[in-house]
Amino acid sequence: MVVKSEIKHIKSLQQKKYRIQNGLFVVEGIKTVSELLQSSFSPYKIYSTDESLLTGIPVEKAIVSASELKKMSSLQNPNKVLGVFHIPRAVPPVFKDWILVLDALKDPGNLGTIIRLCDWFGIRHLVCSPDTADCYNPKVLQATMGSIARVNVVYEVLDSLLERPEVPVYGAFMDGRPVYGQSLPAAGMLVMGNEAHGISAAVSEKVKHRIGIPQYGDQRTESLNVAMATAILLNEIRRPTQR
Amino acid sequence: MVVKSEIKHIKSLQQKKYRIQNGLFVVEGIKTVSELLQSSFSPYKIYSTDESLLTGIPVEKAIVSASELKKMSSLQNPNKVLGVFHIPRAVPPVFKDWILVLDALKDPGNLGTIIRLCDWFGIRHLVCSPDTADCYNPKVLQATMGSIARVNVVYEVLDSLLERPEVPVYGAFMDGRPVYGQSLPAAGMLVMGNEAHGISAAVSEKVKHRIGIPQYGDQRTESLNVAMATAILLNEIRRPTQR
Repeated sequence: MVVKSEIKHIKSLQQKKYRIQNGLFVVEGIKTVSELLQSSFSPYKIYSTDESLLTGIPVEKAIVSASELKKMSSLQNPNKVLGVFHIPRAVPPVFKDWILVLDALKDPGNLGTIIRLCDWFGIRHLVCSPDTADCYNPKVLQATMGSIARVNVVYEVLDSLLERPEVPVYGAFMDGRPVYGQSLPAAGMLVMGNEAHGISAAVSEKVKHRIGIPQYGDQRTESLNVAMATAILLNEIRRPTQR
Repeated sequence: MVVKSEIKHIKSLQQKKYRIQNGLFVVEGIKTVSELLQSSFSPYKIYSTDESLLTGIPVEKAIVSASELKKMSSLQNPNKVLGVFHIPRAVPPVFKDWILVLDALKDPGNLGTIIRLCDWFGIRHLVCSPDTADCYNPKVLQATMGSIARVNVVYEVLDSLLERPEVPVYGAFMDGRPVYGQSLPAAGMLVMGNEAHGISAAVSEKVKHRIGIPQYGDQRTESLNVAMATAILLNEIRRPTQR
């Protein structure tokens, strides 16, 4: 049983403004909540309709009714457990492996998928321009499937990052040089652009290596979805150079 | 101006049952409708809120009000043009290039993305098990971005297809042999499985070459989304073997 103001508070965390104000975000579903509980994320409070699911969880918790959970949830069919966690302090990216950089990526589903791809390919640091979708948006978290626990997502202005001398800067362009012909270094930054407009002009200037994925079909195909292109390029970065 | 029964008829095509009964499907948006008009798809009727968009289109057409379009549409914000097309007769797949095969893929967004990937990588034939999502589902068509015009999608029982002697059968498995180490043939079939359960046991038996995408991150990452895995494997099929 929770009071109305608490439900309202949790519901408000669906908006970025209130997430920032409170330093809190919400994840839903047994799997994601337990992954976050086992990670370095710090829990604030866990809610569940099922008492047994809360047993042994050593954090503040409450049993709620199905209708209370529905009121707190961003899902049409809430999934038994809802967790509120503290937004972690961002850690500066480390330049000894590849870092993925997103320039104004807007779609929460794409961002969630890309976080999951980073996790799969062991990319530990994801830097997003401030106008990229918020990684604590419920739709993003839903799409990450818990991978948010293993990828350090940092929001910062890209200009000075891309001027860092430690590693070369690569970027994906429709007319970029085919990635297949290149021997990629062991560490670098890979910039992926906005869904509709690609990498912005200002950011493009800082990209030294313009790479692309050759198209094999009809020229009318507009472009690969940015998440698909990211999947292919991260695979190219990680795959052994010879087969 | 259209009559109520016509609106009802078009609305009914959102359901597979009525699409099959009538042999018709609906696409929305200027871009997709014009791509389909320029393809081998046969138009039935085109509707638009904007007379100028219908000018010069030599097929049956009607101007509709915004509220009529909204009633016909599957979108929350309909996009000026709605086209009704005949479902084409499926062409048998040709075994001289790679064919993509989907075993019980359920998510319309994934299917749409995969059709778009086929188009990008020039995969002309996509064979789906009968329990795969319907490619004329509005959500699939929305995700294909017009690529449906350039990919032959066939629904059939996979058993006899996978026994065809012309080309070897590959399939994606979590524990498959890393795709990087292999020299892939110029033609083959690549089977991708269901989102939750992968390739079914019956279909697995017919897959001679079990391939996989090595994971570089933490072992807790569950799996790559099937559309991501398809992107990576089609890229592996098409990329030159050396770089």
